[in-house]
Amino acid sequence: MPLIFVGLGLERAGISVRGLEEARRADAVYAEFYTSIVPRLSVEELQQLIGKPVRVVDRKTVEENPDEILRRAKRERVVFLVPGDPMVATTHVDLRLRAHRMNIQTEIVHAGSILSAVAGAAGLQSYKFGASATIPFPDNPSSRPYEILVQNKQRGLHTLLLLDFRAEEERAMTANQAIEIMSGLERKHGKKVFLPETLAVVVARVGDPDARVRAAMIRELASQDFGDPPHSLVVPGALHFMEGEALKVFGGAPADVVDQLVR
Amino acid sequence: MPLIFVGLGLERAGISVRGLEEARRADAVYAEFYTSIVPRLSVEELQQLIGKPVRVVDRKTVEENPDEILRRAKRERVVFLVPGDPMVATTHVDLRLRAHRMNIQTEIVHAGSILSAVAGAAGLQSYKFGASATIPFPDNPSSRPYEILVQNKQRGLHTLLLLDFRAEEERAMTANQAIEIMSGLERKHGKKVFLPETLAVVVARVGDPDARVRAAMIRELASQDFGDPPHSLVVPGALHFMEGEALKVFGGAPADVVDQLVR
Repeated sequence: MPLIFVGLGLERAGISVRGLEEARRADAVYAEFYTSIVPRLSVEELQQLIGKPVRVVDRKTVEENPDEILRRAKRERVVFLVPGDPMVATTHVDLRLRAHRMNIQTEIVHAGSILSAVAGAAGLQSYKFGASATIPFPDNPSSRPYEILVQNKQRGLHTLLLLDFRAEEERAMTANQAIEIMSGLERKHGKKVFLPETLAVVVARVGDPDARVRAAMIRELASQDFGDPPHSLVVPGALHFMEGEALKVFGGAPADVVDQLVR
Repeated sequence: MPLIFVGLGLERAGISVRGLEEARRADAVYAEFYTSIVPRLSVEELQQLIGKPVRVVDRKTVEENPDEILRRAKRERVVFLVPGDPMVATTHVDLRLRAHRMNIQTEIVHAGSILSAVAGAAGLQSYKFGASATIPFPDNPSSRPYEILVQNKQRGLHTLLLLDFRAEEERAMTANQAIEIMSGLERKHGKKVFLPETLAVVVARVGDPDARVRAAMIRELASQDFGDPPHSLVVPGALHFMEGEALKVFGGAPADVVDQLVR
């Protein structure tokens, strides 16, 4: 029997019609909410929509003790609900590999992903994004996000920076904290890619009807309040004319700052 | 009144539950099928699912004469259905900008995108992809896909190559044609990033239940039949151990070829 990974997308009803059908016909439905946050989605509502109980599992269960899920999938149809697009997190690739080793067939039902949605919400072209990185909390520092930004900037590419999320501690990084961390890395490494006058874009709650896009200089963004998580941060590279227009119109970016980047 | 861009995702029922709700409560529903192919999705079925007529518009109408859509959106709720995730195509950013200039509010309802789905289907980590490129048909040649591949390879990043699609001519490029074109660019530029022994991944119909992933040396892939479009091509960079396992297990890649790339 199959183990079906179904994406919940980026908002309350972000699951696809096929994903919902798969959950409705499954013998057991599991869900995780530790890899990301889906704004305003509650387990109660999800259970109501699907019409059956949804068992929420934590990171430890999935990574260290997935036997219950796998044993069920051996004899029954099991759906595993995941925020966003389901295979973006490495931890689920691992679960899928384990299933295959037990001869359990797997399927993937896709949904909206932060990776493509952020570009669209900001009006930036997704093919012009370089590698992305996650900014970790300061108790687990890494200069990787800064290095990725330097490399992308050299090639004129946009950079998507995802922000750390620790479900077990109920902590999601805000764009303001991310800006502080990146500014610290700038002071340390000095490559001039994240200065107070650098243009950046904050996208909050992408995919939710309450999503917000704000494009401005980092010094302006640093003190603004973007509301509930998740937040993400984009540092644009060279801009096509239409991308520049989009940042002005959808993100309220100042024309002079944008026009300097248009090639 | 709003103009709502709703993604159809990657398969017949790939639209999100919210997207379907928006289409059902709209006064008018438009759809385009010229930016990409959604396997096995028919307009008839879509109309049945939504319960109202869906007006299919071609590229010319949307790009040169969008006034009908915009005039309706000025006074009514209008939904515009788009394959994949709706704002990936530049042409729709343009339509959204036009709407804003007319004081028409816009919303985006996301869905599965080929950009994040291909990585997931192949078991590759999406943050390790560099910039992507589309391989155009030979009557409109470009060396850009090859240059992007060279730049990504230098940094150990994966490269997603999308394949040209011309709805007006009913032509979608196959992975085999793409391999031929890229091999021609390799002979011309000689940077050794697309040789007969290079590991590549073909993903056909990603997101569809009939999706297929095949990872092998280019010389093996060149003559295989991958079935109906859309196809896409990935050239992996350096591989994490788990990515290597995934290419073997999900794509049938030969262990010795994969292991050379694992860092």
